[in-house]
Amino acid sequence: MSEKLVLHEDPRSGNCYKIRLTAAFLGLPLERKFYDIMKGETRTADFLAKVNSNGRIPVLQIGDRFLPESNAACFYLGDGARLVPADRFDRADMLRWMFFEQYNHEPNIATLRFWLYYVGEANLSDEQRGLIGSKRAAGDAALELMDRHLADRDWFAGTALSLADIVLYAYTHVAEMGGFGLSGHAHLCRWLDRVGEQPGFVPMD
Amino acid sequence: MSEKLVLHEDPRSGNCYKIRLTAAFLGLPLERKFYDIMKGETRTADFLAKVNSNGRIPVLQIGDRFLPESNAACFYLGDGARLVPADRFDRADMLRWMFFEQYNHEPNIATLRFWLYYVGEANLSDEQRGLIGSKRAAGDAALELMDRHLADRDWFAGTALSLADIVLYAYTHVAEMGGFGLSGHAHLCRWLDRVGEQPGFVPMD
Repeated sequence: MSEKLVLHEDPRSGNCYKIRLTAAFLGLPLERKFYDIMKGETRTADFLAKVNSNGRIPVLQIGDRFLPESNAACFYLGDGARLVPADRFDRADMLRWMFFEQYNHEPNIATLRFWLYYVGEANLSDEQRGLIGSKRAAGDAALELMDRHLADRDWFAGTALSLADIVLYAYTHVAEMGGFGLSGHAHLCRWLDRVGEQPGFVPMD
Repeated sequence: MSEKLVLHEDPRSGNCYKIRLTAAFLGLPLERKFYDIMKGETRTADFLAKVNSNGRIPVLQIGDRFLPESNAACFYLGDGARLVPADRFDRADMLRWMFFEQYNHEPNIATLRFWLYYVGEANLSDEQRGLIGSKRAAGDAALELMDRHLADRDWFAGTALSLADIVLYAYTHVAEMGGFGLSGHAHLCRWLDRVGEQPGFVPMD
């Protein structure tokens, strides 16, 4: 990677951690630039104009180009390396789990962690409070599906650690901060340990 | 592609149409197997065991293997072909828009189309009815962001039609069925026409 890599991030965000973990597994140096999402630092005119018009982090800066969307940033870093399977079906199957993560997992498990642990239930809007039950059920269903998938395999896609494992690890390993129980999911717990034991692993801040 | 391709789908679903449109642009033959999601045909024990444990369509069957998640299925079909940019940054930038589609676009624009056009407002739960306002605002914001992105470019990623355009086209071109207005987004409307004029284009059923 010849161009300098800068991660625009909030270290509390699992979406940001995914990119840091991918870079760590690949031994890629990553400069970090911090924002506080609780203080609206990703909604300033300057951020919207220069970094991401969608007002969100993480954004991976590659030289003078900016790449939003955590899973796309992981793909950029892993493209052509060992974290992206060389087999065509396995590569698409990895993406299948990465899309599952953004559609079925993150909006439930990451959102409840943010609402209950960082914002605080007392500070939620009525609409947010009304959604806790359905997000709890959908998050539990996502964890259950993951646990069943891991019953007879070590990794989500292909036969080795891939980006699918990294992006699902990010919010699963801190799911208890959002009130989700992991102890009933034995396969999932063993997979969490397995990811944490891989050479190059770095913990969330 | 040597293995037979079968699309497990409901033709009213834009997520299914994405895969059909990708195959059409690439000239790939695709057998179609129909399910009625309104009748729960993707939640049967047989479907869950054989096709997708997540109980959802579309699923792309490749020989005897099954690939859920619409955008992953599009990637499988397009991998190595002209709909996936050869440049590394552009390829990741294409995925950036595909993740944006599943996170910011589909849960708002496709969901309101489904709720208001197919289910009917009178048949929604109180929780669903309470979400219409925030999904309307988030969907409008997604369309506005797309329109601004297209102000000085013809395609979402790279310099030609890619999977990013196909997956965003699917629910954008029928957004009015969910009560979204497109006429104020001139760049977006021209891009919709542009996609429809590409050789190989097929309309939604």
